[in-house]
Amino acid sequence: MKHNEITSFLNDHHADAAWITTPLNVYYLTGYLSEPHERLFSLLITKDGEETLFCPKMEVQEAKNAGFKGNIVGYLDTESAFDLIEQRTYKTFAIESEHLSVKRLREIEHAFNVEKILDIDQVLKDLRNVKTTDEINTLHEAAKYADLAIQAGVEKLTEGITEIEVLNHIETTMKQHGISKMSFDTMVLFGDHAAAPHGTPGDRKLQKDEYVLFDLGVIYKGYCSDITRTIPFGNPSDKAKEIYNIVLDANKQAIAMIKPGAKISDCDKVARDIISNAGYGDFFPHRLGHGLGLSVHEFPDISSSNQDEFKEGMVLTVEPGIYVPDVAGVRIEDDIVVTQEGHKILTGYEK
Amino acid sequence: MKHNEITSFLNDHHADAAWITTPLNVYYLTGYLSEPHERLFSLLITKDGEETLFCPKMEVQEAKNAGFKGNIVGYLDTESAFDLIEQRTYKTFAIESEHLSVKRLREIEHAFNVEKILDIDQVLKDLRNVKTTDEINTLHEAAKYADLAIQAGVEKLTEGITEIEVLNHIETTMKQHGISKMSFDTMVLFGDHAAAPHGTPGDRKLQKDEYVLFDLGVIYKGYCSDITRTIPFGNPSDKAKEIYNIVLDANKQAIAMIKPGAKISDCDKVARDIISNAGYGDFFPHRLGHGLGLSVHEFPDISSSNQDEFKEGMVLTVEPGIYVPDVAGVRIEDDIVVTQEGHKILTGYEK
Repeated sequence: MKHNEITSFLNDHHADAAWITTPLNVYYLTGYLSEPHERLFSLLITKDGEETLFCPKMEVQEAKNAGFKGNIVGYLDTESAFDLIEQRTYKTFAIESEHLSVKRLREIEHAFNVEKILDIDQVLKDLRNVKTTDEINTLHEAAKYADLAIQAGVEKLTEGITEIEVLNHIETTMKQHGISKMSFDTMVLFGDHAAAPHGTPGDRKLQKDEYVLFDLGVIYKGYCSDITRTIPFGNPSDKAKEIYNIVLDANKQAIAMIKPGAKISDCDKVARDIISNAGYGDFFPHRLGHGLGLSVHEFPDISSSNQDEFKEGMVLTVEPGIYVPDVAGVRIEDDIVVTQEGHKILTGYEK
Repeated sequence: MKHNEITSFLNDHHADAAWITTPLNVYYLTGYLSEPHERLFSLLITKDGEETLFCPKMEVQEAKNAGFKGNIVGYLDTESAFDLIEQRTYKTFAIESEHLSVKRLREIEHAFNVEKILDIDQVLKDLRNVKTTDEINTLHEAAKYADLAIQAGVEKLTEGITEIEVLNHIETTMKQHGISKMSFDTMVLFGDHAAAPHGTPGDRKLQKDEYVLFDLGVIYKGYCSDITRTIPFGNPSDKAKEIYNIVLDANKQAIAMIKPGAKISDCDKVARDIISNAGYGDFFPHRLGHGLGLSVHEFPDISSSNQDEFKEGMVLTVEPGIYVPDVAGVRIEDDIVVTQEGHKILTGYEK
């Protein structure tokens, strides 16, 4: 099915072959996940559907074990993979232009006598954009582990503890549950430190009556979760509570409008209007959310510039935030799946 | 100093500006580390030395806090960063061709009226290739934590334990020592499972009289370590022990020849000849090692195709291995710094 979409694209566009290079896209199409670092790791798909995986020789067996049935060109570090295959010509060649480096493009143009380049990025995005039932079930499990992680963090909160100590407790707890990898660097930020939306946890000590911002996710069977909760420790200032309630309202109202056919840009607008009308428009500097799947940031982009509609099977985050320097930073984020009737929230920790 | 090398390169090559996009290279030059995901994050350096960082608006303050003193263009997710600056023309433009994507190149060519592209990759590699005393001290600390991690793993070995359980114990122990991030996915592989050089730890249970392969590293103050030890649990077969001793000999002899002026390809050859002469040449499918620094795989490449010489201040791994399917996999890896007189081994765990 997935592969048919690609060969159809190639035939529709009179292209001879596609060169898939994003490791997660190669995984999606082959079942084999690899982190090639600077090494060549690509899946070639011809318009006739013939598939060839180019990978380091030492990974050939792992790729077979993962169930990949196509051809494999395994190369040594001292070899050029292109020297190991017969001369081929693919005049019109589809690439992932957002991933392929300029240098690799030059190599490929030379190796395959390419005359014309097409972009295939969107085909892969559209494919991964709509999840299967199995994928959604896995994402739901990943979201449940994220709930557990928030709970572990909240239980550890005590006056004087540092952000890093809480973070370590969360990740240790996750390991005890068999989760070996978080989907991004776990964020635990206290009080005004949370006013930097991408802040780094450090030795800041927890004080009474401030908010704690947790932003974290796990990788479960390859799929990512991503949750943010902002939790009061004691009784934060009225100003901070006011900000919290505005963000919570934006989160809930934006989620409420999600259903197949609704415009994605409108979802961002619902949240942004609530925050702007409350006078905090300048303090919400990021998009409302992003798609979630094998990657923690993937299609669809939940922003004012996305004119697409929600489709059944999309999985995404809704994460409005307000960050007022020296006062407070609040973000509340849930993972949502678009269902036939509307939507379902995958993250369950109380807000 | 670093910046002078770049402006000198630009002036020597009659180039108007450079566009640095590898996040670790931006960090190296600005002191600000960011993981931009798909967002634009670049440092523009003109031939006159003017620097402009392009980053998401919500990271502007963090970049300043990190000590960056140049111009900053902070953009919202809904904006194009190039629309926020006055029209500029950089006819000859230097890029990191191994990192910059084809799509971004098209955007830049348009935004800056570029007519000619130059590659600046090698300038950055050469800069990062030779470490300062401070960098070497930090890498030494990172290596000591890697030793500690191996020790934690070895102490946990007991019949019937799984690879994942040992792995979790190692990473939990590291967190207790304040290490929040490993430099890559920790590898713990038992017996014949280690015969896949890039295998994934799983539920394989430890049996008596087999080898355990640990490959791991930590990130300490941004710098990476990378160590492999293959440790006997009980009394492995004579065949496995024979393989171990060949690899150990290759590791030691290759390290012994490292000094300023020695050829890097010869270092690979020393190890490869020992393994080939013992009849295992086909079972050593990867290069001997790689550079180590802010990235766990960086310049120099320690392989038969690298005709460069070792220079004082380089830090690298030496990691010969033999992988015989269904029999055993052995790899022994150390981190080495090239000193004025020869070399110093940073990793200390017994071999």
